[in-house]
Amino acid sequence: MGHAGRVLWSGPLVMLFAVVTLAEAADTNLRAQASALFASLPRDLGTAENPVTPERVHLGRLLFFDPRVSADGAVSCARCHQPALYGTDALPTSIGAEHRTHPRHAQTVFNAAVQFVQHWRGDRTSVEDLSVKSLIAPLAYGNPSFASAMAKLKAIPGYAPLFAAAFPREEDPITPDNWGKAIGSYMRTLLTPAPFDAFLQGDDRALTTVAQTGLRTFIRTGCATCHNGVGVGGTMYQKFGLMEDYWRATGSPIVDKGRFDVTQDPADLHVFKVASLRNVAMTPPYFHDGSVATLPEAVRIMARVQLGRTLTAGEVTEIVAFLESLTGPSPADFVTAPILPPGAVASPPTR
Amino acid sequence: MGHAGRVLWSGPLVMLFAVVTLAEAADTNLRAQASALFASLPRDLGTAENPVTPERVHLGRLLFFDPRVSADGAVSCARCHQPALYGTDALPTSIGAEHRTHPRHAQTVFNAAVQFVQHWRGDRTSVEDLSVKSLIAPLAYGNPSFASAMAKLKAIPGYAPLFAAAFPREEDPITPDNWGKAIGSYMRTLLTPAPFDAFLQGDDRALTTVAQTGLRTFIRTGCATCHNGVGVGGTMYQKFGLMEDYWRATGSPIVDKGRFDVTQDPADLHVFKVASLRNVAMTPPYFHDGSVATLPEAVRIMARVQLGRTLTAGEVTEIVAFLESLTGPSPADFVTAPILPPGAVASPPTR
Repeated sequence: MGHAGRVLWSGPLVMLFAVVTLAEAADTNLRAQASALFASLPRDLGTAENPVTPERVHLGRLLFFDPRVSADGAVSCARCHQPALYGTDALPTSIGAEHRTHPRHAQTVFNAAVQFVQHWRGDRTSVEDLSVKSLIAPLAYGNPSFASAMAKLKAIPGYAPLFAAAFPREEDPITPDNWGKAIGSYMRTLLTPAPFDAFLQGDDRALTTVAQTGLRTFIRTGCATCHNGVGVGGTMYQKFGLMEDYWRATGSPIVDKGRFDVTQDPADLHVFKVASLRNVAMTPPYFHDGSVATLPEAVRIMARVQLGRTLTAGEVTEIVAFLESLTGPSPADFVTAPILPPGAVASPPTR
Repeated sequence: MGHAGRVLWSGPLVMLFAVVTLAEAADTNLRAQASALFASLPRDLGTAENPVTPERVHLGRLLFFDPRVSADGAVSCARCHQPALYGTDALPTSIGAEHRTHPRHAQTVFNAAVQFVQHWRGDRTSVEDLSVKSLIAPLAYGNPSFASAMAKLKAIPGYAPLFAAAFPREEDPITPDNWGKAIGSYMRTLLTPAPFDAFLQGDDRALTTVAQTGLRTFIRTGCATCHNGVGVGGTMYQKFGLMEDYWRATGSPIVDKGRFDVTQDPADLHVFKVASLRNVAMTPPYFHDGSVATLPEAVRIMARVQLGRTLTAGEVTEIVAFLESLTGPSPADFVTAPILPPGAVASPPTR
């Protein structure tokens, strides 16, 4: 439109306005559609039962990074949820105390608290429940009892005043329940607002054109049927392999019965929690068994085995662009480690 | 001296000046004595062979935190040298790839580069040598070969440009040698200037009175015979148990032949590198076998088995106060983890 600057002719400008208005309308429609399916992250996820207080978060952050409470002294929450790896361990399946290999992949700790249940099979009801049970889970901290775990905590003098401050008016605040509340409170702050949140809140330029197209494709293809809510996932259970055999599609070495092992209900065979897709571009490998290395491949396989759809290369690229808009910066007080109160046992830790 | 403000009587003031002057003289003597034995930390420890460049430090910092290069995908330098634990793992003896237990205690990575050799037995000549050999050491990263380690590095696309930037004019810069140089360059920046450095540089108030007394006691007792130089240790080998049986004094479960296993020289039986005492208050447990839990106990035992001296409780307190003045803040780009370039294998890592 080189001539527009030369002559006073409003035609192209009117056309330009019309296009902008159409684009805006499209964005508004897309935002309205997206807002009906998803939600942006709140400031924190504290609850009436476990409010986010500075004292709980401070203590929980220390405990999260402390390996001295585990059976072999080498497992902390941060062992499988590493600051350098976006809250994951980048392993297909994780390794717990005494090098026991977990059958499933560690999901990122970021935004974990938005999910309706925790872990792939939903056998942890909340981030607090997860933290408490990790203490004695053989595949996590591996302690023989809660008492042995609490004894190790009490042997580090720096912790007593911090538990007292986080749980005032309790006579003996160093308990498994308060361990769970402190770590849970910290986890309820580990949220990663992303460009997609800014888009939902009205910023058109937060998503690239291809990411917006990807969002439309994501919805139209049916991905949002399961991956929805504030976590873009984490709101329901679903069978892995609705339309096609998941285990054959991924070449997964182990057929996992999923939630069936928890409930013994045949309807739960191969059923897993639908994963939150926040930060998915930063947290390979994928799926409950870490059987797929790249995001485009994961998108292709999901469309096939869950929706019976073979995506074009272009559709995969678009959806990946949308998924990349779910990456938010790592929370500062996760990437920066706390300095733990010193104290160490001199003989091998209690097994 | 409430009356000093009321009457013009110079007596007490003159006395006060005299005391200050005496104290200053004492401080000057102590500083002169200390400066002959110790030295304050430089800004960095780059060498002509491996200069500290921003590109090498940036790459080395990423590599330091990356567990994906190890045999089981769970061991990085940061596994045994954790940000939350002052660059240690707080274990008596460390745990490497595949849960192989190391016979010795991991020393802090802080100021490691000031030492004349690395590791307790001096079987690593430099931080670069240490980093290279860790790749294939069964008790560290446990890779079967350098080639398999480099293949894992090359599989993470984000590393190629960083190696190229850190080692320009090299055709294939992803090599074990450059791995060692990058991590070594980073380690040469992990220095922790402490109140003791400020004291050496002329700040009298950097050390408390008890710490200054402790410094005198440390020198007078003979501790500085071995623990000297910029690291307050790390300048020589010494036999553990010169005056008394070390293994009986500590109740250590394993009698360690020390450097003898490296040289087969009978003179090296039970000989170890003298540890740097910088940050010793933050890095229990103590000694090559992590057999002692607390710093006062470690000080008492050292005086007995190395110097044949039984310290009074007061002398132990003084020396501990001096040792606490060797604690410097953790370097910011160690406590804050880098965000690693994503990339993961989908099957269990190559063993």
